[in-house]
Amino acid sequence: MPSSGAQPESLETLLAALERLPGIGPRSASRLAHHLLRIPESDALALADAIRTARARIKPCSLCRAPAEADPCPLCSDTTRDRSLVLVVETPRDLQAIEAAGIYRGCYFVLGARLSPLEGVDEQALGLGALAQRALAPDVVEVCIGTNPDLEGDGTALALVAALQACRGEDTEHPLGALRVTRLARGLPTGGQIEHQNASAIADAFEGRRPSV
Amino acid sequence: MPSSGAQPESLETLLAALERLPGIGPRSASRLAHHLLRIPESDALALADAIRTARARIKPCSLCRAPAEADPCPLCSDTTRDRSLVLVVETPRDLQAIEAAGIYRGCYFVLGARLSPLEGVDEQALGLGALAQRALAPDVVEVCIGTNPDLEGDGTALALVAALQACRGEDTEHPLGALRVTRLARGLPTGGQIEHQNASAIADAFEGRRPSV
Repeated sequence: MPSSGAQPESLETLLAALERLPGIGPRSASRLAHHLLRIPESDALALADAIRTARARIKPCSLCRAPAEADPCPLCSDTTRDRSLVLVVETPRDLQAIEAAGIYRGCYFVLGARLSPLEGVDEQALGLGALAQRALAPDVVEVCIGTNPDLEGDGTALALVAALQACRGEDTEHPLGALRVTRLARGLPTGGQIEHQNASAIADAFEGRRPSV
Repeated sequence: MPSSGAQPESLETLLAALERLPGIGPRSASRLAHHLLRIPESDALALADAIRTARARIKPCSLCRAPAEADPCPLCSDTTRDRSLVLVVETPRDLQAIEAAGIYRGCYFVLGARLSPLEGVDEQALGLGALAQRALAPDVVEVCIGTNPDLEGDGTALALVAALQACRGEDTEHPLGALRVTRLARGLPTGGQIEHQNASAIADAFEGRRPSV
């Protein structure tokens, strides 16, 4: 491309920033950048301000590590939630999906990562010490592991169980021996169809079958 | 969802701003927002700054209307470009695609829109007066219409031709009667396969067939 046909430097900078976002390739970045140049300036600046404000106001909750403006977050300070049960999820989006279902009334712990040796995410990145600390809180009776039902999620779950067992060994005074560690059930997804399930889901459904009545 | 599980207000604002972008639905917005919260703060603010800087520095070139930091833009001020030929394109992205091909050495005029009655885009939005003005420049010999080879692009091309003819009628002193108005060729796309072409492209290829020496 001749240099005279190059795009303005500030547009190139914007394109590069957009391309660093997940799922945004060069074509999407170009579409987004030109959209941001075409819409009313106030609308474009509203996005810039929203990014800046969110980064300034939102920090991880010191208890559950979910992004929040208050610490502890509204969910951790909600006295109507069951504080004896802590669900460990991979991401804040998993937390939101579970909250949207409206059936869970316990607390959370957000890992913010999942074991993935291929991507260089090891046990250190999981912050297992913080989870052990959270599990040691006197009102916690059960830690339920809600990692995703896939390869990395299963590996992460194994690491979580090991870490919780190890911390039980270190702290002999605390009744962590009585801590229940559970995992969300696996089986056929309600609303799905058996003919579309993979072999693993069907195997899970057999292994976890329960007496009806 | 219980109110205690709602997301922070500044996160909701960010999600709303992201969802207004083209091709970004609620799920993509959520993925992008949590990504922007998770990455180093400086990287997130770099995007906010890039949007702000691009909006502050980039304006449409007064000659070709392409987004540029200088006016006229580097392309319009490039004395090595052929100023007798003006290619009319729909968007700055079309301009970039043609520049990337590296074979066109004339100038441009960016419509910034295409006729689309269903979306409420009428002839007024095309800024045909500005195009007529551009075509009246004494050094312009040919205006080539490079709208997209589809329904809206064809409709837009018809409106452009009509506008150029009307302005020729108004200005009797200027030799706009000698202005050539052309359109980019239609036919089989090099590198494509005939079996994958639609009937319109094949019809275009027959209609535009040329003696092979």
